[in-house]
Amino acid sequence: MDKIGICGGGLIGASWALGFSSNKYKVFVYDNSKKVREEFLNTVKSLYEDLTILKDISFNEIKSNIVICEAIEDICKDATLIQESIIENLEEKQNIFIELDKFSNKETILASSSSYLLPSEIGIKIKQKDRCIVAHPALPPHVVPFVEICPSKQTSDITIEKAKKIYQSAEYIPIILKKEIEGFVLNRLQGALLNEAVRLHEEGYASMEDIDISLKHALGIRWAFLGPFEIMDLNAPGGIKDSFTRYKPGIKKLAEQQNSIPDYSDDYILKLEKEQRLRLKSSDRDNRIKKRNQLIALVRKLKLENGE
Amino acid sequence: MDKIGICGGGLIGASWALGFSSNKYKVFVYDNSKKVREEFLNTVKSLYEDLTILKDISFNEIKSNIVICEAIEDICKDATLIQESIIENLEEKQNIFIELDKFSNKETILASSSSYLLPSEIGIKIKQKDRCIVAHPALPPHVVPFVEICPSKQTSDITIEKAKKIYQSAEYIPIILKKEIEGFVLNRLQGALLNEAVRLHEEGYASMEDIDISLKHALGIRWAFLGPFEIMDLNAPGGIKDSFTRYKPGIKKLAEQQNSIPDYSDDYILKLEKEQRLRLKSSDRDNRIKKRNQLIALVRKLKLENGE
Repeated sequence: MDKIGICGGGLIGASWALGFSSNKYKVFVYDNSKKVREEFLNTVKSLYEDLTILKDISFNEIKSNIVICEAIEDICKDATLIQESIIENLEEKQNIFIELDKFSNKETILASSSSYLLPSEIGIKIKQKDRCIVAHPALPPHVVPFVEICPSKQTSDITIEKAKKIYQSAEYIPIILKKEIEGFVLNRLQGALLNEAVRLHEEGYASMEDIDISLKHALGIRWAFLGPFEIMDLNAPGGIKDSFTRYKPGIKKLAEQQNSIPDYSDDYILKLEKEQRLRLKSSDRDNRIKKRNQLIALVRKLKLENGE
Repeated sequence: MDKIGICGGGLIGASWALGFSSNKYKVFVYDNSKKVREEFLNTVKSLYEDLTILKDISFNEIKSNIVICEAIEDICKDATLIQESIIENLEEKQNIFIELDKFSNKETILASSSSYLLPSEIGIKIKQKDRCIVAHPALPPHVVPFVEICPSKQTSDITIEKAKKIYQSAEYIPIILKKEIEGFVLNRLQGALLNEAVRLHEEGYASMEDIDISLKHALGIRWAFLGPFEIMDLNAPGGIKDSFTRYKPGIKKLAEQQNSIPDYSDDYILKLEKEQRLRLKSSDRDNRIKKRNQLIALVRKLKLENGE
């Protein structure tokens, strides 16, 4: 059984642990907080229910593949890959990477779950830069199958190929960025949509409720199984070339109006909060997160059943 | 039984006819092409299969609620609402609206399916501007439940409220724009995402395949049942205010890099076509459209079963 090190025992770490341990990996987990270490299996357990929608596996089997470690050295020794999932702070990540670099074999891949920081910056202080990547999951990684692998200029091709195979063997669908960029692909696509949602709301064209409906009851239903380039292939009889030729004047005209940078002022954020609370209760948040994870698993299951 | 007029018998018209006729409306259809009129029921039949995933209704029942008319007057007389779905050309729409205005009662709502043109422009030549709206569906409207109602400054509140109720009674989920804007909500959100997908591809950060994966295997799974503002409420312990306060430096920084306007040059479109054809066959397009419609219906069914 190959060994995966998990550094950081919060929700992301627990979600990764579930993803790997349910796919025949032995997972070794470290967190510098004793309390987090002691709670870790409970955190995994709380996410396990979502996984049962997708997979027939007992919690005992998962538990038998997870080892909680009291020292960072123990997750490093002979690990195939170490998935760092501590807080999103560059200095802390740089320091933990120095330790991971020191205690692991030279072949071990060092992967950060960062959603935003560049691998060249996270790994700047380590010796073996060729084995350093960002492997950013989509939340939560025990039910969403996606991971985006972002190498730096120093990352070796062998590292990229090996990482891709490891994630695939744990049932993830990895993509490979060809060069590093802040926000990678996922958060850049998400940010572009979010900024336009905010422009439409702030400038008074539609309510938050109506903008949410436009995504979840229209665009999102298609986007659950088709990407933007696949969709453009279906939007005109001649395929993607025909679609872009027909629609480019409209798309470009919109782009010209979509290049303002929303201010996100404190006043505006308060306005968002106020409108939100008229329709969604804060006290209900945990239930909504639970339902989100279940629905993600159900949509994923539906896709798998239909060969997607 | 209330009467709906459908003006234009292409795919959109047929899809609307299916949506209304399966919800206890009597649908009267007109197209100026005899061939289109003669083919209309076959077009409806070809879409009917998708609907059976969602609904237990016979094609005979649907057929009994559809009347093909040889004159535009016949779809107008005593109609509650007329859904215009002819080609996306401003002059042709303006001219057809003159006719619809002339032959219908003053209370009949005149709704255009336009995805881009403004209601103030489409209705500029008619007398009764208070009853003119754009009601833009998401494709295809026999399985996607969404419609965005865009009024002009001249549209009356009564028209907006009445239209909303009509679409709701036919199981659509309507949103109401507060003022008109090109691309409405749906195509503006879609365009913002598409432009960023193209930036990432054109500047060499990721392949079309990998960008498609980021949407369909990550973002889209969530977006199938949650809108952007609902998601932001779940992304930080303190809800949407907390989320935007934490993440606004990152979101704004991305926005600053996302304000270029892709050129969509002929060379670039050819490059897209070439990369696309390496992974998706043109000859397979009809099957992919069929599968898209079925999967939309299946995701919609899953959502309804889960109270979404």
